[in-house]
Amino acid sequence: MSETNQSRQILLIRCSDHTGLIHSITGLLLEKNCNIVSNHEFVEPIDSIFFMRTEFFGNIANEELVRELKKVLPADSWIQIHKEKKPKVILFATKESHCLGDILLRYRFKELDIEIPFVLSNHRELESLVKDFHIPFHYVGHENISREEHEKQILSILEKHSFDYIVLAKYMRILSQEFVSHFPEKIINIHHSFLPAFIGANPYKQAYDRGVKLIGATAHFVTESLDEGPILAQDVVAVDHSFTKEKLMLNGRDIEKIVLARALRYVLENKVIVWKNKTVVFR
Amino acid sequence: MSETNQSRQILLIRCSDHTGLIHSITGLLLEKNCNIVSNHEFVEPIDSIFFMRTEFFGNIANEELVRELKKVLPADSWIQIHKEKKPKVILFATKESHCLGDILLRYRFKELDIEIPFVLSNHRELESLVKDFHIPFHYVGHENISREEHEKQILSILEKHSFDYIVLAKYMRILSQEFVSHFPEKIINIHHSFLPAFIGANPYKQAYDRGVKLIGATAHFVTESLDEGPILAQDVVAVDHSFTKEKLMLNGRDIEKIVLARALRYVLENKVIVWKNKTVVFR
Amino acid sequence: MSETNQSRQILLIRCSDHTGLIHSITGLLLEKNCNIVSNHEFVEPIDSIFFMRTEFFGNIANEELVRELKKVLPADSWIQIHKEKKPKVILFATKESHCLGDILLRYRFKELDIEIPFVLSNHRELESLVKDFHIPFHYVGHENISREEHEKQILSILEKHSFDYIVLAKYMRILSQEFVSHFPEKIINIHHSFLPAFIGANPYKQAYDRGVKLIGATAHFVTESLDEGPILAQDVVAVDHSFTKEKLMLNGRDIEKIVLARALRYVLENKVIVWKNKTVVFR
Amino acid sequence: MSETNQSRQILLIRCSDHTGLIHSITGLLLEKNCNIVSNHEFVEPIDSIFFMRTEFFGNIANEELVRELKKVLPADSWIQIHKEKKPKVILFATKESHCLGDILLRYRFKELDIEIPFVLSNHRELESLVKDFHIPFHYVGHENISREEHEKQILSILEKHSFDYIVLAKYMRILSQEFVSHFPEKIINIHHSFLPAFIGANPYKQAYDRGVKLIGATAHFVTESLDEGPILAQDVVAVDHSFTKEKLMLNGRDIEKIVLARALRYVLENKVIVWKNKTVVFR
Repeated sequence: MSETNQSRQILLIRCSDHTGLIHSITGLLLEKNCNIVSNHEFVEPIDSIFFMRTEFFGNIANEELVRELKKVLPADSWIQIHKEKKPKVILFATKESHCLGDILLRYRFKELDIEIPFVLSNHRELESLVKDFHIPFHYVGHENISREEHEKQILSILEKHSFDYIVLAKYMRILSQEFVSHFPEKIINIHHSFLPAFIGANPYKQAYDRGVKLIGATAHFVTESLDEGPILAQDVVAVDHSFTKEKLMLNGRDIEKIVLARALRYVLENKVIVWKNKTVVFR
Repeated sequence: MSETNQSRQILLIRCSDHTGLIHSITGLLLEKNCNIVSNHEFVEPIDSIFFMRTEFFGNIANEELVRELKKVLPADSWIQIHKEKKPKVILFATKESHCLGDILLRYRFKELDIEIPFVLSNHRELESLVKDFHIPFHYVGHENISREEHEKQILSILEKHSFDYIVLAKYMRILSQEFVSHFPEKIINIHHSFLPAFIGANPYKQAYDRGVKLIGATAHFVTESLDEGPILAQDVVAVDHSFTKEKLMLNGRDIEKIVLARALRYVLENKVIVWKNKTVVFR
Repeated sequence: MSETNQSRQILLIRCSDHTGLIHSITGLLLEKNCNIVSNHEFVEPIDSIFFMRTEFFGNIANEELVRELKKVLPADSWIQIHKEKKPKVILFATKESHCLGDILLRYRFKELDIEIPFVLSNHRELESLVKDFHIPFHYVGHENISREEHEKQILSILEKHSFDYIVLAKYMRILSQEFVSHFPEKIINIHHSFLPAFIGANPYKQAYDRGVKLIGATAHFVTESLDEGPILAQDVVAVDHSFTKEKLMLNGRDIEKIVLARALRYVLENKVIVWKNKTVVFR
Repeated sequence: MSETNQSRQILLIRCSDHTGLIHSITGLLLEKNCNIVSNHEFVEPIDSIFFMRTEFFGNIANEELVRELKKVLPADSWIQIHKEKKPKVILFATKESHCLGDILLRYRFKELDIEIPFVLSNHRELESLVKDFHIPFHYVGHENISREEHEKQILSILEKHSFDYIVLAKYMRILSQEFVSHFPEKIINIHHSFLPAFIGANPYKQAYDRGVKLIGATAHFVTESLDEGPILAQDVVAVDHSFTKEKLMLNGRDIEKIVLARALRYVLENKVIVWKNKTVVFR
């Protein structure tokens, strides 16, 4: 396939399903000299919703493509087009290093081809690590101020930067609904349990007390309901009665960082379409 | 190790921990000419509880061994001794065949070295299967009678048999606290979710709606709190957005039957000691 | 989507890739009043091979559809069309019951919507099980005759039946290249190891001696090279040093039957396209 | 349990099995005022080998304990005693950062409570990373010199340091039998496949060509036979036909680093006893 000076683009579509959608969309792309290199579709059978992800090489401008697509798609269509550019990802952390460090390593060695404008934390424990990775570190302490005031300070920093996603790499403050509402499908969190088990605080304590034989981790988009946003990735690891709460945490951390990295990859590769409170992930 | 005409016995001990327990217990067994072939211990570190499982060959009578052990163990000791004999396991089922059929096969080909006095069901769907395995089938319908009356009928059948365990192989009636209280640590259930996620009815529907990326199954002892007894075994299988509720169930069934069989093996091999709402499983 | 009196069909295509394939194929189906309900494509990037699986409802005859497709597809195209009908699956077994029994149960309760014309075995151990499932059993002993003669007897039985697949449910005789060559992509085997580890005989002995920490199972199409056909499904289970060869086998059996069932499901749902020595499985 | 100014010690024993071993060993420890806090035993049933790991608090000197143990143990006994001290671990790497970076992070945040005297590499790619973690970096290039000469240079550096283990964190040079013979059970390697599948070079290429549905990683002690030392830990991750060699590697790296960390933890916590070509890992 010729990939000359045309740019690689990713088209995401979600709309109500009807006959001939794929034919119309691929026809439009052919007509506009776009070379499809990969195509995934899915139809949700209960509500009859059509999802499509198409990678193509072409010169067409976003606006034109959207305009043309709207002519052939149903009125309820949601369309996104991503051109290749480095996504900017801001990392929030608190004191635990495993998820933050893991992302910094993947970034440093270009496994994650992103820019990290800065790391923000409500503590100073991770400052030297971040600086050793040559990335700006913003400390925004939460002590002696209200959550409202704390988030106001964070927002004033965010406003000075452009970014695509915020990753909560074990950021241990609960974000307000107000804060979250600014960034729909832009904030990714790693929850230290196999959701919906052990929602809320101290999941490893809960897991220990319940005597579970597996522990897990869940990466999800953050919505206004705590720990209830659309799930991006999950995994588990086997444990047994001999695992103390500390050993559960130790083993849980390995799952957490891998699951978070996996979810981040899906999001950065534009493989995710959200619908209701769920995700379609075109792996 | 000489295993002559001595019988193989399994000793389970649970008591508060103190110095020298293993030495005392192994000393006593040596003195009584018992040959230890396998030994497992665990000390729960928070409450300092000692757990031990010992397999040995010896001629000592249960009563004598318990009497002697009580001399060297703390007053709070819980002691069990199992001699080799075929455990009798009664199976309860409803309409779904996968767990029941799986156990019947393992029984028929002696992978599970048990006796099955009968299968009991509140429906007739599985009757011909059970009969083709040459096992008695008791139908106890629940329609038009109260749960109390239904369980009374079941109890009157159970009373006529001796048995070691009841396995709920997808028995879809909730047993009353009163019923359960007759058989502590004797009833094993398979729950079609990764507990404590999706407690209660329709877990696959719940899993579908929540958009989870893994589904699981949990085998547990039945206690008086629904779906909250000590967990024996758990496992999961990866799923994605394309799994309808039906496909989730199809995949879930494979996990259910494997997890139930695994749990049953632990119980039948006397590898489980319950404490609080948890299990120590000496695999 | 209207699914009136049109029949559900599955179209599988494999051909060299070029621009516009999806558009052409979906256009043809639209023109012929075929309603696509699900569509999967994959392009192998090294050799540029296009794979497609399409489910549709329509009235078009196979011959006509193939004829029309050939007009728009490259000359090297491989095309298969499956109409809904119960596949006929012949089971071969030897002495072990776990895979055979598992398939019989799935068949009996319609999880696998197949016909089983008969079970064939070189031993009599499983005869009563098969008969209790009300399925014909053919015994073809291999003792005192050559492999050639043995397979000749089997072939003469097979010739009297129509069938779609042969499943080797722990059939422990190696089939000759000659035999296999009659049934390309028609014979499914379960190998009791994670291939390509432990090719050949006694994989559990090999696994024990090597001290592996996981054991696995592999379902694959049988080709003329032993244990080297295209892999359909694989899974593993964790083990440790305390697993004797017997306990490895016990745990391995559970993986074997689940993996075989999974592979069989892929094949029966026409989700598999073979290419070189690999499979594309559109899950 | 009183843990006053007594030191925590770990006793590892391997010997031929006979009656009363546990009783003798625990009796000796009691007599010497050693407080056992944890105890694991295993008897290999084929060759009748006894393995034991005991954690205790006591003041007894190593030499005295070994001397006393020899009185009660068989002549073939292998005994190790570990007192709490920070193990020194030297890391070898080449160009890939994921395993090295992962260990550096675990070290920096004290998840691994070790000293890292230095990192050694035959390339300079990872030098800046190592220096940003404030750890000495030794470059020993292998170009234009024989393997013998290269290893001689490495040995001359090693001789100047005391250390407990060498971890090959994706060190891509094959060590000579001569080199390995200096450090029995001291060198830990991560192999990028599920051994014994895909021994040797390019396992991801081999996995791609074979069309496997799972890829894995194996951590093992290095012995004089390439990729055949005793296995410490293994894990796998599911893949499918859409995984290119590059995507296999990307996913494989996550398994590699987790498996290596897990193995390292077992070794550092003195949970491993080697016997023949296998490990007993008391988790």
